[in-house]
Amino acid sequence: MARAAGGGAALAEEAKRLAAWAAVDTHVRNNQILGIGSGSTVVHAVQRLARSKKEDLRIICIPTSFQARQLILQNGLTLSDLEQHPELDVAIDGADEVDSDLNLIKGGGGCLTQEKIIAGYAKHLVVIADYRKKSNSLGEQWKKGIPIEVIPMAYVPVAQALSKKFGGVAELRMAISKAGPVVTDNGNFLLDWKFDKVHKWNEVNMAIKMIPGVVETGLFIGMAERVYFGMEDGSVSTREKPVQ
Amino acid sequence: MARAAGGGAALAEEAKRLAAWAAVDTHVRNNQILGIGSGSTVVHAVQRLARSKKEDLRIICIPTSFQARQLILQNGLTLSDLEQHPELDVAIDGADEVDSDLNLIKGGGGCLTQEKIIAGYAKHLVVIADYRKKSNSLGEQWKKGIPIEVIPMAYVPVAQALSKKFGGVAELRMAISKAGPVVTDNGNFLLDWKFDKVHKWNEVNMAIKMIPGVVETGLFIGMAERVYFGMEDGSVSTREKPVQ
Repeated sequence: MARAAGGGAALAEEAKRLAAWAAVDTHVRNNQILGIGSGSTVVHAVQRLARSKKEDLRIICIPTSFQARQLILQNGLTLSDLEQHPELDVAIDGADEVDSDLNLIKGGGGCLTQEKIIAGYAKHLVVIADYRKKSNSLGEQWKKGIPIEVIPMAYVPVAQALSKKFGGVAELRMAISKAGPVVTDNGNFLLDWKFDKVHKWNEVNMAIKMIPGVVETGLFIGMAERVYFGMEDGSVSTREKPVQ
Repeated sequence: MARAAGGGAALAEEAKRLAAWAAVDTHVRNNQILGIGSGSTVVHAVQRLARSKKEDLRIICIPTSFQARQLILQNGLTLSDLEQHPELDVAIDGADEVDSDLNLIKGGGGCLTQEKIIAGYAKHLVVIADYRKKSNSLGEQWKKGIPIEVIPMAYVPVAQALSKKFGGVAELRMAISKAGPVVTDNGNFLLDWKFDKVHKWNEVNMAIKMIPGVVETGLFIGMAERVYFGMEDGSVSTREKPVQ
């Protein structure tokens, strides 16, 4: 284990950049409406878009969070919203983990609800991630649990219902820079559900969504069309959605 | 049409009171945790509870809205929440319409999400309503559409998705005492979906809940156990959930 922690972080950052640039260069075309995801990998995508804009690319960007909105504005891109553009061409977003069926865990950054909205109204969802997010089965890589946004008044019974119905433990995500729980951009709380076995994710996702008090889950099942992984060796590896 | 409008309103008010009192008198027992619904019929239930309390009934009340919370406090009842009591004995709530299978439309008052949460964690949901809410098939009585709470950023694509998938028209509910849309107690918007045919409500309810941006629907399917209708003639009529 000779690699220094700093070296590992730099390697992962470079992998994020590679994935983001490959996705932007492959999928972004003139006059598109783009969904802009949230998180550290998306920063690279927006920077690449800003550079493309200098080459006269006209694109309209719709953010998935306060962070994404700021990135769009700081990089001089054109900001819009779903009220003006309810259908998007492509959404580009990160993920906390991607399995071999392109199922995703998202929401480490707490923006899962807006990310699922933007992905849900985009013709294509393209995911960008570094090699640490690549797995065969959800839970192999991401150990913090599946984020679930909940109406604050319901966090206790929802957490209990999750354990009772599906096993595992759901924990209220606590804030670091404020007292008490994380409050999402939507004013809600987050549960991180640490599941204890592999599930049929499509069924579980629907069942969780039906629990009263659940706003959205961080399970993105059958939504991603292509994933770009920046690898440790400087290459980019892709995964495609299986043809149905 | 000899009945004056004032007479009709008084008749309906008396019908609400009859339903509420019958439900409280039948279902409320000592030491229960009660869910308190929202709306004009629930006012009578809380007043009846307050009277019962003077007879030494110890009950704990969990509200479904700011309105319900105030009712509980103004009537000197014991207020609590789902954090302290994640499981309730009985929830008592109104409805905008009740069909012959005890499926409900709720949310005319905009508190559907909290009402579904409270109902969802109660062992029994008892509904109280006046005769105008009684129907054979949803949509016969309530003409304002099915309320659907949505994340504000998504109201346009959710409305489009509703029409496209299920027909009808979904309209953003506008406020009267403020400019712009109604904002719910959860900080969200409401769509009122005017459907144009009778659906398989359980399936449609699940499908709507899965639309990205939907927080909750005003369809309460298979949740109510017994409904008390106050009738025009001063009687109380009940409907029971069919035995499964």
